Amino acid sequence: VDFIVIMAGGGGTRLWPLSRRSRPKQFLSLLPGGETLLGATVRRATRVVPIERTLVVTAASQVDEVRRCVPSLPAENIVVEPEARNTAACIGLACVEVRRRDAGAVIGVLPSDQFVGDDDAFARAVELALRSAADGPITTIGIRPTAPETGFGYIQAAGSGAVRGVQRFVEKPDAATAAGYLASGDYLWNAGMFFFRASVMIDAMHAHLAPLGEILDAIAADSTAVSRYAAAPRISIDYGVIEKVPPSSLRMVPGDFAWNDVGSWAALPEVRPHDEAGNTVLGDALAVDARDNVLVGDGRLVTAVGVSGLVIVATGNSVLVLPRERAQDVRKIVDALEKSGRTGDL
Amino acid sequence: VDFIVIMAGGGGTRLWPLSRRSRPKQFLSLLPGGETLLGATVRRATRVVPIERTLVVTAASQVDEVRRCVPSLPAENIVVEPEARNTAACIGLACVEVRRRDAGAVIGVLPSDQFVGDDDAFARAVELALRSAADGPITTIGIRPTAPETGFGYIQAAGSGAVRGVQRFVEKPDAATAAGYLASGDYLWNAGMFFFRASVMIDAMHAHLAPLGEILDAIAADSTAVSRYAAAPRISIDYGVIEKVPPSSLRMVPGDFAWNDVGSWAALPEVRPHDEAGNTVLGDALAVDARDNVLVGDGRLVTAVGVSGLVIVATGNSVLVLPRERAQDVRKIVDALEKSGRTGDL
Repeated sequence: VDFIVIMAGGGGTRLWPLSRRSRPKQFLSLLPGGETLLGATVRRATRVVPIERTLVVTAASQVDEVRRCVPSLPAENIVVEPEARNTAACIGLACVEVRRRDAGAVIGVLPSDQFVGDDDAFARAVELALRSAADGPITTIGIRPTAPETGFGYIQAAGSGAVRGVQRFVEKPDAATAAGYLASGDYLWNAGMFFFRASVMIDAMHAHLAPLGEILDAIAADSTAVSRYAAAPRISIDYGVIEKVPPSSLRMVPGDFAWNDVGSWAALPEVRPHDEAGNTVLGDALAVDARDNVLVGDGRLVTAVGVSGLVIVATGNSVLVLPRERAQDVRKIVDALEKSGRTGDL
Repeated sequence: VDFIVIMAGGGGTRLWPLSRRSRPKQFLSLLPGGETLLGATVRRATRVVPIERTLVVTAASQVDEVRRCVPSLPAENIVVEPEARNTAACIGLACVEVRRRDAGAVIGVLPSDQFVGDDDAFARAVELALRSAADGPITTIGIRPTAPETGFGYIQAAGSGAVRGVQRFVEKPDAATAAGYLASGDYLWNAGMFFFRASVMIDAMHAHLAPLGEILDAIAADSTAVSRYAAAPRISIDYGVIEKVPPSSLRMVPGDFAWNDVGSWAALPEVRPHDEAGNTVLGDALAVDARDNVLVGDGRLVTAVGVSGLVIVATGNSVLVLPRERAQDVRKIVDALEKSGRTGDL
């Protein structure tokens, strides 16, 4: 039977100062109605599988956040990673857990911090991908690009149709290459969604990432061996496994839905409505003669007069102001705080 | 003998959200070393008269703020206005209080919320003005303009020298007129500093603002009559009295010192040092690739990347962002909050 595993571990400061290492963006109420990205991901998952077969993998320190975001999730469906070891190990641990419940399980793995604009189209793609995976191939959903994005990896499809072959995975391209990808129609965004039989994935880990395979076998045989997880290789599922699998054993389902990785504050206008002046507001804000701003106040009143194209984020401790087109540069503040030893602000 | 009376009543939101109705700008630690404008005003006053002859007039609700800003001020030198009735009544009340201490007193009245850049030059001007007032004329200090300011009233001088006659007071001019004033050299800024014998001022009030004169007489005769203060005309000392006194009874001392009424956040760079990138910081701030900003954090970390010429002010409840050249437009936020009934934010 089908399971969905949602990866909700890891930290993040790309939406600093609202997101913190201890409270990454999947736990923030960014969506209309105060929904979190994690909550929305679980909601979408349960269109395809029941909540009893929806699992969330997270860190011990974030279990309470998961419960808060998804109160309906059964406690035993929260899988706790002993420590963050990147996605290959995380998915391996989930495979062990799911296989214990159902040796023949087919698993869909989804990131917890992405925005999806069309739940129906998403559910259709997930169902197709699960069906493809049930037949053996590791299957991914590729997002049809809507812009020449240089911030994502791409997957080159083979053939056409609702389930395609995979020619290759390619790294984040430069702008010219990205424009070519967009024009060709054969390159889709790699959104980190993977579908596979649990046994197929564990076999692939043994074949391509043997140290992880061994650790997972040990944990499967004796759950107290979970302490060995700390020795798992820190590598992503893409680099560590998927890109080493022969393309003939891979499939891709093109996803035709609005999708966004909410990688910076500049993405907020894509996941929330804006007012007539183009201001996107999260929280309590007052804008006068101000256009196209992103105004975020975590319990604070954010006011702006006569400015345009700015991101303004205010939390209890910190305020960030920067132009929308430089939203990635929040990293410069995070780096500066880190260098000056102010990690308490992160 | 000489007294200095400092007017520290009234509220203000021109430096909102740091200044509030309950905490106007004279009580804010805007100056280097955390000094307040009121504290600096008292410090300058005591270069000319001892602290025993320095009085502060304020509202009952602000007595604690005054004590906090000027711990050295004797308690009996805080004169409490029963309610705010503008400067004519305030100065009248101060005259009654000072005359009770010394019937022949000469009084210098100073606003509490102005910046002065040269304490020596200021003290010299105050001493000259007190000496002129001791001879009878109501005397003012006019600030020699350094820019064609349209936000101030002007005083047209008669003659030259260190103590001059007064031709007339003129309203806030338009830009062309202000440029003419600046070029002529005869027009100085009216900074609201007045020097007079207490008896001369009370007589002038009787002559030109009789209802106030009567109320002051009643209070002088019986201090319990202070309840009548609530019926005092609400008018400024300029409109109500000074501008009605024959110019022949007025004098002006030109003040040659940096001066600023700190009328908006745009003035902060004139009263505090800035860094090499032109950013003026009050509190805790971190600016990356950011120039010529005013960054104010009241216990909050204010961060900015890639912006220039902005005012960013963060307090516990509210954040304000606007361009420096629109710093006066904080009024638009204040108005909008008022209209929506959010006076708690003011």
